[in-house]
Amino acid sequence: MLTNRTKYRVIYGDTDNMGYAYNANYLRWFEIGRTELFREVGLTYKTIEEEGIILPVSEALCKYVSPARYDDMLIIETTLDKSFKVGMKFDYRIFNEEEKLVAKGYTKHACVTKAGKVVRPPKLLKDFISKHS
Amino acid sequence: MLTNRTKYRVIYGDTDNMGYAYNANYLRWFEIGRTELFREVGLTYKTIEEEGIILPVSEALCKYVSPARYDDMLIIETTLDKSFKVGMKFDYRIFNEEEKLVAKGYTKHACVTKAGKVVRPPKLLKDFISKHS
Amino acid sequence: MLTNRTKYRVIYGDTDNMGYAYNANYLRWFEIGRTELFREVGLTYKTIEEEGIILPVSEALCKYVSPARYDDMLIIETTLDKSFKVGMKFDYRIFNEEEKLVAKGYTKHACVTKAGKVVRPPKLLKDFISKHS
Amino acid sequence: MLTNRTKYRVIYGDTDNMGYAYNANYLRWFEIGRTELFREVGLTYKTIEEEGIILPVSEALCKYVSPARYDDMLIIETTLDKSFKVGMKFDYRIFNEEEKLVAKGYTKHACVTKAGKVVRPPKLLKDFISKHS
Repeated sequence: MLTNRTKYRVIYGDTDNMGYAYNANYLRWFEIGRTELFREVGLTYKTIEEEGIILPVSEALCKYVSPARYDDMLIIETTLDKSFKVGMKFDYRIFNEEEKLVAKGYTKHACVTKAGKVVRPPKLLKDFISKHS
Repeated sequence: MLTNRTKYRVIYGDTDNMGYAYNANYLRWFEIGRTELFREVGLTYKTIEEEGIILPVSEALCKYVSPARYDDMLIIETTLDKSFKVGMKFDYRIFNEEEKLVAKGYTKHACVTKAGKVVRPPKLLKDFISKHS
Repeated sequence: MLTNRTKYRVIYGDTDNMGYAYNANYLRWFEIGRTELFREVGLTYKTIEEEGIILPVSEALCKYVSPARYDDMLIIETTLDKSFKVGMKFDYRIFNEEEKLVAKGYTKHACVTKAGKVVRPPKLLKDFISKHS
Repeated sequence: MLTNRTKYRVIYGDTDNMGYAYNANYLRWFEIGRTELFREVGLTYKTIEEEGIILPVSEALCKYVSPARYDDMLIIETTLDKSFKVGMKFDYRIFNEEEKLVAKGYTKHACVTKAGKVVRPPKLLKDFISKHS
């Protein structure tokens, strides 16, 4: 199972009037998670782009379990979902320092050429997925 | 059916390297949608807060159908889901000026006191929901 | 004097833990201001880009005079500074609905080709500036 | 001289249509810089807040020298300006991994009680400043 754990410190700019981290920012943290998962296995998202492929998010879900607050050091845990074949899918769990679950969710990604055409995952990505199965 | 349509112009700060609007920003637009839906019927979210109730997002889903781009004038269509009883739920559809569907999704909200206790929707909100059923 | 006034409603996602609008967001509002100033006189920033010119911010200053808060309807007043010759400069004043000054500042912009070369303002922009002097 | 160096990786959500990091995000990175400077000397911003003092930004300047791009690992260098007496001032320089200057600027901060009254820096902060002179 391909899983990465990376850290993120909640800043003032992430919080809102309620004193919680604002809901949209969790999708930014999901991005940090999948980027670091790629990097950990030696494949940067930049490299994928250089192959002419972009991976825009086609669907995102986030369940907010327990609020993240200012200055919390979050742990973003990202797992590649190998069962997803028509593009890429990542599952996320975000914990605080006490390992309490803060949020969980997923993102699905289409493989798209720079001209905007949806394509099957290129060899680079298929190798990446099968190698980590 | 309680539905609101409000407009939002995509700025440079909303876009990313791909030339698309960044995925997290859609959750900001969902917020604009539900705030304007409340306002349209004479209830501001601020008033709800003044009753001691906050409505943090407990779950958010977004399906990205067709990319929003820089300077697009988006139409955010928000509908109250009256069938949802344990809190509040809003459904969203975002269109561009050609009325092409850009994204759709929902947010679920818990009713929480400022002390952090999850409660049933207060009279103010129940009246609001039943009035618009 | 070329001046535009446009409105922006502060959302939850703009606020922070202090209950104020977060400082970085003012630079987003400056962008909204200058974009609408361009649009008012029939020149969209998109058109300038289509001429092969981008106008990245080379310097930004913001003085925060009085806090903007959640749900405030802000008035962004943008004025073209015609005395600035090596690129473009805009001055901003942000007011709340009571016409109280919330912030003021400026942005300076270089004229850059898509290849990254700094150039003098093209005819399109010089005409725009002189026409509104 | 009290200086801190901390790192930040530019994500997709920080970039814009031009392929650069969006100008407003630099003010977020300034926040990361001053927070880590505080933390390095054992004083968290949270502790200052618990003393009943907040330090809202009263003025921010940023000069954008060379664009930051997607996936750049930035070094945020923050220095306390001890000569500033009416509040707090921090100077920033942001470098990329090749130690090329990306941006520089400053933020000025007022000392404000939670009730909104501007006050002189409390003992906690004066001790902090003089200790590091």
